[in-house]
Amino acid sequence: MTLLPLPKVMIEPLVRNALLEDLGRAGDLTTDAIVAADRLASTVLTARQNGIVAGLDLAALAFRLIDPSIEITTLCPDGSEVSPETVIATVSGPARGLLTAERTALNFLCHLSGIATATASVVAAVRGYKARIVCTRKTTPGLRSLEKYAVRAGGGSNHRFGLDDAVLIKDNHIAVAGGIQAAIERARAGVGHLVKIEVEVDTLAQLEQALRLDVDAVLLDNMTPDDLRQAVTMAEGRAITEASGRITPATAASVAATGVDLISIGWLTHSAPVLDIGSDFQI
Amino acid sequence: MTLLPLPKVMIEPLVRNALLEDLGRAGDLTTDAIVAADRLASTVLTARQNGIVAGLDLAALAFRLIDPSIEITTLCPDGSEVSPETVIATVSGPARGLLTAERTALNFLCHLSGIATATASVVAAVRGYKARIVCTRKTTPGLRSLEKYAVRAGGGSNHRFGLDDAVLIKDNHIAVAGGIQAAIERARAGVGHLVKIEVEVDTLAQLEQALRLDVDAVLLDNMTPDDLRQAVTMAEGRAITEASGRITPATAASVAATGVDLISIGWLTHSAPVLDIGSDFQI
Amino acid sequence: MTLLPLPKVMIEPLVRNALLEDLGRAGDLTTDAIVAADRLASTVLTARQNGIVAGLDLAALAFRLIDPSIEITTLCPDGSEVSPETVIATVSGPARGLLTAERTALNFLCHLSGIATATASVVAAVRGYKARIVCTRKTTPGLRSLEKYAVRAGGGSNHRFGLDDAVLIKDNHIAVAGGIQAAIERARAGVGHLVKIEVEVDTLAQLEQALRLDVDAVLLDNMTPDDLRQAVTMAEGRAITEASGRITPATAASVAATGVDLISIGWLTHSAPVLDIGSDFQI
Amino acid sequence: MTLLPLPKVMIEPLVRNALLEDLGRAGDLTTDAIVAADRLASTVLTARQNGIVAGLDLAALAFRLIDPSIEITTLCPDGSEVSPETVIATVSGPARGLLTAERTALNFLCHLSGIATATASVVAAVRGYKARIVCTRKTTPGLRSLEKYAVRAGGGSNHRFGLDDAVLIKDNHIAVAGGIQAAIERARAGVGHLVKIEVEVDTLAQLEQALRLDVDAVLLDNMTPDDLRQAVTMAEGRAITEASGRITPATAASVAATGVDLISIGWLTHSAPVLDIGSDFQI
Amino acid sequence: MTLLPLPKVMIEPLVRNALLEDLGRAGDLTTDAIVAADRLASTVLTARQNGIVAGLDLAALAFRLIDPSIEITTLCPDGSEVSPETVIATVSGPARGLLTAERTALNFLCHLSGIATATASVVAAVRGYKARIVCTRKTTPGLRSLEKYAVRAGGGSNHRFGLDDAVLIKDNHIAVAGGIQAAIERARAGVGHLVKIEVEVDTLAQLEQALRLDVDAVLLDNMTPDDLRQAVTMAEGRAITEASGRITPATAASVAATGVDLISIGWLTHSAPVLDIGSDFQI
Amino acid sequence: MTLLPLPKVMIEPLVRNALLEDLGRAGDLTTDAIVAADRLASTVLTARQNGIVAGLDLAALAFRLIDPSIEITTLCPDGSEVSPETVIATVSGPARGLLTAERTALNFLCHLSGIATATASVVAAVRGYKARIVCTRKTTPGLRSLEKYAVRAGGGSNHRFGLDDAVLIKDNHIAVAGGIQAAIERARAGVGHLVKIEVEVDTLAQLEQALRLDVDAVLLDNMTPDDLRQAVTMAEGRAITEASGRITPATAASVAATGVDLISIGWLTHSAPVLDIGSDFQI
Repeated sequence: MTLLPLPKVMIEPLVRNALLEDLGRAGDLTTDAIVAADRLASTVLTARQNGIVAGLDLAALAFRLIDPSIEITTLCPDGSEVSPETVIATVSGPARGLLTAERTALNFLCHLSGIATATASVVAAVRGYKARIVCTRKTTPGLRSLEKYAVRAGGGSNHRFGLDDAVLIKDNHIAVAGGIQAAIERARAGVGHLVKIEVEVDTLAQLEQALRLDVDAVLLDNMTPDDLRQAVTMAEGRAITEASGRITPATAASVAATGVDLISIGWLTHSAPVLDIGSDFQI
Repeated sequence: MTLLPLPKVMIEPLVRNALLEDLGRAGDLTTDAIVAADRLASTVLTARQNGIVAGLDLAALAFRLIDPSIEITTLCPDGSEVSPETVIATVSGPARGLLTAERTALNFLCHLSGIATATASVVAAVRGYKARIVCTRKTTPGLRSLEKYAVRAGGGSNHRFGLDDAVLIKDNHIAVAGGIQAAIERARAGVGHLVKIEVEVDTLAQLEQALRLDVDAVLLDNMTPDDLRQAVTMAEGRAITEASGRITPATAASVAATGVDLISIGWLTHSAPVLDIGSDFQI
Repeated sequence: MTLLPLPKVMIEPLVRNALLEDLGRAGDLTTDAIVAADRLASTVLTARQNGIVAGLDLAALAFRLIDPSIEITTLCPDGSEVSPETVIATVSGPARGLLTAERTALNFLCHLSGIATATASVVAAVRGYKARIVCTRKTTPGLRSLEKYAVRAGGGSNHRFGLDDAVLIKDNHIAVAGGIQAAIERARAGVGHLVKIEVEVDTLAQLEQALRLDVDAVLLDNMTPDDLRQAVTMAEGRAITEASGRITPATAASVAATGVDLISIGWLTHSAPVLDIGSDFQI
Repeated sequence: MTLLPLPKVMIEPLVRNALLEDLGRAGDLTTDAIVAADRLASTVLTARQNGIVAGLDLAALAFRLIDPSIEITTLCPDGSEVSPETVIATVSGPARGLLTAERTALNFLCHLSGIATATASVVAAVRGYKARIVCTRKTTPGLRSLEKYAVRAGGGSNHRFGLDDAVLIKDNHIAVAGGIQAAIERARAGVGHLVKIEVEVDTLAQLEQALRLDVDAVLLDNMTPDDLRQAVTMAEGRAITEASGRITPATAASVAATGVDLISIGWLTHSAPVLDIGSDFQI
Repeated sequence: MTLLPLPKVMIEPLVRNALLEDLGRAGDLTTDAIVAADRLASTVLTARQNGIVAGLDLAALAFRLIDPSIEITTLCPDGSEVSPETVIATVSGPARGLLTAERTALNFLCHLSGIATATASVVAAVRGYKARIVCTRKTTPGLRSLEKYAVRAGGGSNHRFGLDDAVLIKDNHIAVAGGIQAAIERARAGVGHLVKIEVEVDTLAQLEQALRLDVDAVLLDNMTPDDLRQAVTMAEGRAITEASGRITPATAASVAATGVDLISIGWLTHSAPVLDIGSDFQI
Repeated sequence: MTLLPLPKVMIEPLVRNALLEDLGRAGDLTTDAIVAADRLASTVLTARQNGIVAGLDLAALAFRLIDPSIEITTLCPDGSEVSPETVIATVSGPARGLLTAERTALNFLCHLSGIATATASVVAAVRGYKARIVCTRKTTPGLRSLEKYAVRAGGGSNHRFGLDDAVLIKDNHIAVAGGIQAAIERARAGVGHLVKIEVEVDTLAQLEQALRLDVDAVLLDNMTPDDLRQAVTMAEGRAITEASGRITPATAASVAATGVDLISIGWLTHSAPVLDIGSDFQI
C-alpha cells in the first residue's frame, strides 16, 4: 500500500485548531516574555524509541503556521523506521516560533507515530502470512483521517472510514432484521453499486448463510483458530475473510496462520501509546 | 477536587463534529437499510474491565443529537469506579438512533474513561503520600478540555491548560535567556498578577537559584529520589514541588515518598489505553 | 432502495447557513416593518407541476429555525408523486416567521424536488429493464449529500459520494499509469478491502482487459448500443456494467435495452430544473 | 455593468468546503494509488457548447488549494463568449493535483457558466430594448453571491441579494397589512434612507396607488403585455418598472417590447443547465 | 422606526462565541469549585444610570445556553428608558449558571445599551427638527448587526450595513474617477436597480453637480451651518441631505436646525460608553 | 511588560470575519464600479489626536487579505505615542484594495488604539507609584484577546483572561458558600497548582480573614483611600492588593497613593472612545 500525504486542505484546519487550543487567549506567555524576537535557533526532532514515523506534515505545518520563516528538513519521512537517536527532522528559524509550536507539533507527531509503530509491530508479527492488518472505527473523535493515515504509514490497511462508505452488518443489525438473510437482502437493496457489504458472523452456520448470499466480506468475530481455519476454507474464493476480537500483537501470528485475509484491531487507533520523540534544542 | 460537568456549550461542537466525521456524506448505510424507523430497542453500556468512568455527558449527547427521543439513564456517573459487568448507563429509544450513535458515544466514553482509569491507578499508587497526580500539555490535539476533565474524573489534578494560563520556564527558555535569573525576571515582568511562574530545574544548584527568585513552583526534572528528597527540603514553604520525567504507575510511589507536592505524567493523556466498555443490545 | 431521512445533525448547518445568507446583516426588512409580531397565518406548499417531492425536512427546519412555534404538517412526504394543485404541506404560525423563512424553505424544496423529479422521469423511462439510474459527482458545490438524497427520493441510486469511497479509474488515470493493467494493479494494492474498483473503458478490447483483472464494475463510456450489448454479454457475471456519456431521458430506454446494470447521468444533479412549488398564503 | 472579481476572502471558504466535500476522509483514492507524485501534466479546459464563461477564479483556486504549484493560464476570462472547442484556460502542474481538483473546479465553472449563459441568452433576446435582465432570490442555498456574480457575467443585473438590502412588498405583505398604502407607509417608516422600496402590484389600480405613494420601483406581476405597456406609461418618470412572472427566453422580447425597465427571471439561477466544459488531459 | 428583535439564528453564534471566549478550556473555575449544583438563586439586572436598554435577547440567551432551566423575566424590553434602580429583568435558576453566564450577558447588555443610550441622547437633542440620527460603518468588528440594532433601539436609524447594500461615493472615489460626474455615472452603470446612490460633497459647487446627476442622497461633509442651510435649500425635493463630520450631542441641535434630513455620527457605535447595568444577586 | 505581537493564527480569523461582515454578499459596490483595477494609490494612516497606537497587525492584515500585493510600511509600531499629524503607517498598492479594506482596517486600529490610549492615560496618572493598571473581563464580546493586547500596548497589565485561568471569588460566591473561609477552602481544593486565587473583600475584617487563608491576591472593592491604605499595610508581603470600583483617570492617582499593587478599571475596555486615526489618500 503506497503511503500518500493527506492534502494540506484536509490537515490545515486540524493544525490551526490545535494551535489555537494551546495558545488560548493570550498566547505563549513564557516564550513571549523571555525570548527576543530576533533570536534564531534550531531543534532536532529525535526518536527515543524504536518505531515508525507518521505525522511530519502536521508537525511541519504547526511550526509554519506560527512562523512561515521556519524551515523544516525531513530526514525520515512518514513510514520510516527509526530507533533511539535517529534524527527525524531538523527545524530552524526564530526561537520564539520553535518554542511556541513545539508541543503542538510533537503532539501530532508522537500520537500518529505511536499508531504507525503499533501497526508495524503487528504487521511484522504476521509477516509471511497473507493477512493484512486493518484498523477500525474505534478512533479518537475528530482525528479519524489522521489515524487511518497513520495505520497506512505503519504498513496496515484501512477498514471503513465511517458509517457511509461500506455496509458492515453486525449482530445487532441481524437481530433487528430477524435473521442474516433479511439483513443482507435489505442492505443490498438499499445501497449503491460501489458499496461493498460485509457481515459479521459468530458461527460457521452463520458463515455458510452469509456466503450463500454472496457478500463481499465476512467478519469472523471471536472465533477459535480452528473455526477460523475452517471458515477460511469455506470462504475461499467466495468472500474476503476478516478475523476480529481482541487480537493483540502476541496473538496475531496464530490468527494469521489460519489463513484469514484480514485481521482487524481496534487497539491500533484507540490504545496505541505514543512514540517517544523529543525535540532537542540547539541554541 | 470536585468533579464538575463541562458546560454543554463547550462539548456540543466536539460531539457534533465527531458524529459528522462518522456519518460522512451518506449517513449510516447499514442501519438505514436494515432497521425500520419505528423499531425500538435499548442498549446497556457495560464495563468489561475495572476502571473509572468519564465522558458520559458526551456519550449521552451523541445519542441525543442523533435522536432527541433517546433516553439515557446513568447508573454510574463520571468518576465512578466500575468492574466487569457493571452497568454504567442504559440507553433506550429508536433502534436506528442507538445503532448510528453508538460508536461515536463509545469512542468518547472509552477514551476518556481510559484516561480516568490510568489516572486513578497512579492516584491509588501514591495514596498515603501528599503528592497529587497531574497531567501535562501532551494531549490529543483538539481534545484538551476533555482529557483534562478525564484526569479530574480519575482523581488527578490539572497542570496548565495551555501556553497562556501560567508560565513554565523550561531548560530551553533558560538557555535562550542566558540563565535562570534572567529568564525568571523577564517572565515576572511580562505577565499579569494572576499568572503563576514555575521553572524547570535539573540540579539542586539551579533549584537554589530558582527558590531565591521566589517562583511559585519548581519542576524537578528527572531527578533521583535522593535529589528529589533534598529538593523537597530546600523548597519547603517556598515553592510547590513537581516531580517529572518518565514516571510510571510502578515508580510513582517511590517518587511520592520523596515528599513532592505533585507528580506530573504525560502518559495519562497521551498513552492511556481505552477502558473497555461495551454496548449490549437488547432488542 | 428505501428512502431514509438525513440526520438533523447533517442538514442543520446547511439550513442555518442558507437562512443567514438571506437574512444578511439586518434581517427581513420588509416583513419586520409591515407585519405585527402577533399576527398568525398559514401557508400551503402546493405543487404547480407534476413531479416528485424531496427536501421537506430542510424546508421544515428553515421555518422552525426562524420560529420554533411554527408547525408543519406534511401531506406528501419525500418521494411522493405530486401534480398541479397537490398540497405537499401546510405551515402555520406567526406570519412573520412564515414570510421570512419561506424563500429559503422553497429554495431547498424546489431544487431537491427538481432533482427527484428528473431522476424519476428517467427511472420511468427505463421501467421494465433492470438498469438502475445513478447520479455522479457533478453536483452543486456544498450540496452533495442533499442532491444524492434527492436522487434516491426520485427512485435512483447513488454512485460514489466522493473521491474517497470507491476507486474509479478514468482514461487519464490509465494514460498516466501507462496502461489499464498497471492502473488496476496499483489501485488494488493501494486501497482497503471494502473499496470497490470500477474502471472506465472506451472499447471492448479495454473491457476484456479490465474483466480479466477482476474489477468490480466497468464504466462503458460513450459506447454505441451495439457495443454496449456486447459489453454486457462479456461482463455477465464478472462485473457490474455502467453505461455513461450524455444519456438523456429520451435515450435512456434504448441504453437500458442493452442490458446494462446502471446508467449514470450527470444531468440529474447538475442541470435538473427546479420543481415549481408555490407557497399560497392564507391570512 | 462592469464585471468585477469577487474578493478571494469571499470565495475561498466556498472552494475549501467543496474540496473537502469531495475529498471526504480519505482523499482521492484512485489518483493517489495510481499516479506518481512527480508526474507532471496539463489539462485544457475547453468549451463544448456555445456560452459565456463564469467562475474561473473559483476553478483556479480549487486547483491551487490542492497544489499551489499548479499554474493556470486564462485565455477566456469570465464574461467571455465561447463556442465548442474554445480553450478557456490551461492548467499545468503535478498530475495528481490536476486529477484531484478537476471535478470540483469544473463543478463551479460549469454551474456558474451555465447561469451566465442562460442570462446572456435572455439579454440577447431583449437587445434593442432598454430592459435589463435581473435575477431573483431563487438561488441555490449557500451560493447566492456566486450565482448573482454569474448573472452579471452574462450581462444581467442583480435584484436584491437578500431580505435586508431592499424592501420588496409582496402580495402577502399587502394582505397582512390590510392594504397597499398601510404596507408602504409602514415600510417607509421602518427602514433607513438608503433602502429602496419596491412593491408588487397585480393590477393597474394597485399600480396607481403605489405610484401615488412614491415607491422606488414596482414589480408588475404576471401582467399581460397590454397591461404592462399601460403600466409603463403610468410609471414613466415616477418609478422603475419590473416585469415578472414565468418569463422565458422565448417570451422575453415581447415583454421587453412593452418598455419595462427590468425583467426578472428566477429561472436564471434556479434552473439554468450547466455549460458543458471539458477537461482535456495532456499527459 | 419599529424595533424588532433580531432572529435567534443571527444572534446565537455570537453568544456561543462569547461564552466560549470566557469559559476557555476549563470553564468557570471559581463557581464550579464553590457553588453546589443544586443551589438556586436569582439575580436582578438593574440600571445604575439613566439610559435606554438594548440587548436583552443576547443576555437572556447567554444565561440559557449555559443552563436552559434558567428563567428570565423582562420588565423593560429593548428600547425602554431606565433610570438608576430600574429593574430591567430578573433571572432565576441554578446559582452556578447565573454566576457563570453573568459577565457575558452583561457585556452584551451594557455595550448595546450604551449605544442605544448615546443614540437616544442625540435623538432627544434634535427633537422638534426633522433630522433623523443615523450611524455609520464605524462599528466594532464582528458586531455590526448588533450595534446597528442598538442604534434603532435608541431611536436612531441605520445607514449602510456594509459595502454592498448601497453606493456611497466618497472624496477618494471622486478623485480616482477624475471628477464627480464620472464617479456617479460609473456607479449608476454598475449597480442594480434597488441600490441607492449617495455622494459625499464638500462644497456647494460639488453639491450642485451631484444634484444635477440625480443622486438619491448627498453627504454634506464638515460644512458650516450656513452652507448646510443653503445645501438643504438646493437639495429640497431632489435628494436626501445628510450632515456629517464630528457632530456631537452638543452640536447636533444646531446642525438639525439647518433642516438636513439626516445627521450621521460614528461616535454612536465606535465610542459610546457602556450603560452601567448591575447584576444584584439574591441568594 | 514587553509588548509582543499576537500570532497571526490568532488574529486572522477575526480579520477575515470583519472583512466578510463589511463585504456582505456583493462586495464593495462603490469601489468596484468606479475604480479601475490597475489604478495604484497609497494612503497614509495619520493620527488626529494624541494617543497610543495598537492594532497595526490587524489593520495590515485587513489590507493584505483583500489584496496581497498591498504593501504596508509601519512608522509607529504598536505602543508608540502619537500626536496629531503623526504618520503611523503608509499603505500602497491597487487603489481598489485600499478603498475596500480601509474601513475594516481602521475599525480595528482606532478601537484598539483607543483602549491603548485610555490605558496610557491612567498609567501616566499613577506614574511614580508602584500601582500597575489592569483591565477586567468587561470586554467587547469576541474581542477579548485583542482588547487585552491593547491594554498591554498602553502600558497596562492584564487581569484574568477568562473564567478559567484564575480564581476570583466575588461577594456572591462568598454569600453562596456561606462565608469567606468556606469559599476559599473549596476553591483551593478544586483547582490546580498553577491557578492563583484572588478574593474580593469589602471590609478590613473580611480582608483579615482572607489573608489568614493565604490567598494570592485580594480585590479591595470600593474602599475609601483610608481603608485602602490600611489594607495595604495589612496585606504587605502576604498578598497582592488590587483596588477596584469605578476608578477613573481623575481618581487613579489618589488610589495609587494608597500603595496598592494594582488598580483595575473596566472602563479601559468597555468604554474607551476610539483614537481618531484618519486615512489620507494620495492618488
